[in-house]
Amino acid sequence: MKLLLISNSTNAGEAYLEHPKSEIKRFLGDIKKVLFFPWAAVTFSYDEYEKKVQERFSEFGVEVDSIHHYRNTKVAVQEAEAIVVGGGNTFKLIKTIQQHDLIEVVRNKVLGGTPYIGWSAGSNVACPTISTTNDMPITEPDNFGAFSLVRFQINPHFLDSHPEGHAGETREDRIMEFIEMDPYVYVVGLREGSSILLENTAFSLLGSKPARIFKKGMAPKEVYPGDDLDFLFE
Amino acid sequence: MKLLLISNSTNAGEAYLEHPKSEIKRFLGDIKKVLFFPWAAVTFSYDEYEKKVQERFSEFGVEVDSIHHYRNTKVAVQEAEAIVVGGGNTFKLIKTIQQHDLIEVVRNKVLGGTPYIGWSAGSNVACPTISTTNDMPITEPDNFGAFSLVRFQINPHFLDSHPEGHAGETREDRIMEFIEMDPYVYVVGLREGSSILLENTAFSLLGSKPARIFKKGMAPKEVYPGDDLDFLFE
Repeated sequence: MKLLLISNSTNAGEAYLEHPKSEIKRFLGDIKKVLFFPWAAVTFSYDEYEKKVQERFSEFGVEVDSIHHYRNTKVAVQEAEAIVVGGGNTFKLIKTIQQHDLIEVVRNKVLGGTPYIGWSAGSNVACPTISTTNDMPITEPDNFGAFSLVRFQINPHFLDSHPEGHAGETREDRIMEFIEMDPYVYVVGLREGSSILLENTAFSLLGSKPARIFKKGMAPKEVYPGDDLDFLFE
Repeated sequence: MKLLLISNSTNAGEAYLEHPKSEIKRFLGDIKKVLFFPWAAVTFSYDEYEKKVQERFSEFGVEVDSIHHYRNTKVAVQEAEAIVVGGGNTFKLIKTIQQHDLIEVVRNKVLGGTPYIGWSAGSNVACPTISTTNDMPITEPDNFGAFSLVRFQINPHFLDSHPEGHAGETREDRIMEFIEMDPYVYVVGLREGSSILLENTAFSLLGSKPARIFKKGMAPKEVYPGDDLDFLFE
């Protein structure tokens, strides 16, 4: 299985998909066309989203073909050379995937070796559920189940800071609540600019920042690029 | 109908339930016992939660009787003099309310005149759905439907600031996504320290800060304590 799970499309102050572009290019290798899932978009159109991603992927000669153009989305998935799932609102994304009945189709396709790239909401839906998203539940999916390509949960855009004078929960508070409800699952707090790569049966952390790992009964710990992430297979 | 919908239990740097206590006392009037919903608690017990709230309510001589002690929760609601729903995780709260099949029971009770106080998640569930919560979807409720005591949505802990150098969505971005999905509903961004009071068929905004109002097709606008909030009945 080949996965590239990116925390965020865009670092503050940078251009769209700037930080992960060299990794995306390397990950795709000889693939010249990807099937793109634009369904996390809410306040802009799927056509606009496709165009925006195409502009970046054109830099390394890859065609972005959005699934919203297809009448038969299952066939589109089955014929894809690679699957790319963009960020936006995780609830809208998973709801639309469920409406198209694509959970098992995508899962089987990716388990069969087709490379999968996701960022933000697109990384969340690679996990067992969407339960570690930061997004507002603006629409109601059939359930919280996602592609289950990995056994852990990602919290994308993980952040340590908290607005000054704000009493609402910190991100860490929220994840501590999650592990209370689901004590057998690791959560990877993936800071902006970071990605998790699965290739050749090993996970690696990409980027310059550590990730923060949470599991019930364990003190949260930092893992660094280069560290052994085999525990994520547990 | 009598509602006191509070943004947050605790302002930064203050004691628990300090800021709304005089309003709660005034709102309850002669009532000396309230039925408390502790189910939004995740990382601490219902007993602890009840005790914490009781400590504050004791200052004005009100007994806090938590619903988790009751075998028949419907009867507990039907016999309550006032209902108080505490904050925590909105998904866990609404899931537990649904498991006890209390949506209609509470709704009818409050429509019949029993005072309702909520803070944070407890204010969210007074709305038609939980779709404007900030909480992480750590557990999956049957659906997103809530008490529908009002026709608008509250976003509690509304905040303007955003962690510096963070590229994730701002709170306003998230609410703009919500109104895209649900264009007929007002969202009240209720800043910390603020509350919405419904008494004598009029809404008022309490506290020292304006609230930010969102609706599809309308520029977000600020309303101030003392402003006419009749549009919220639309």
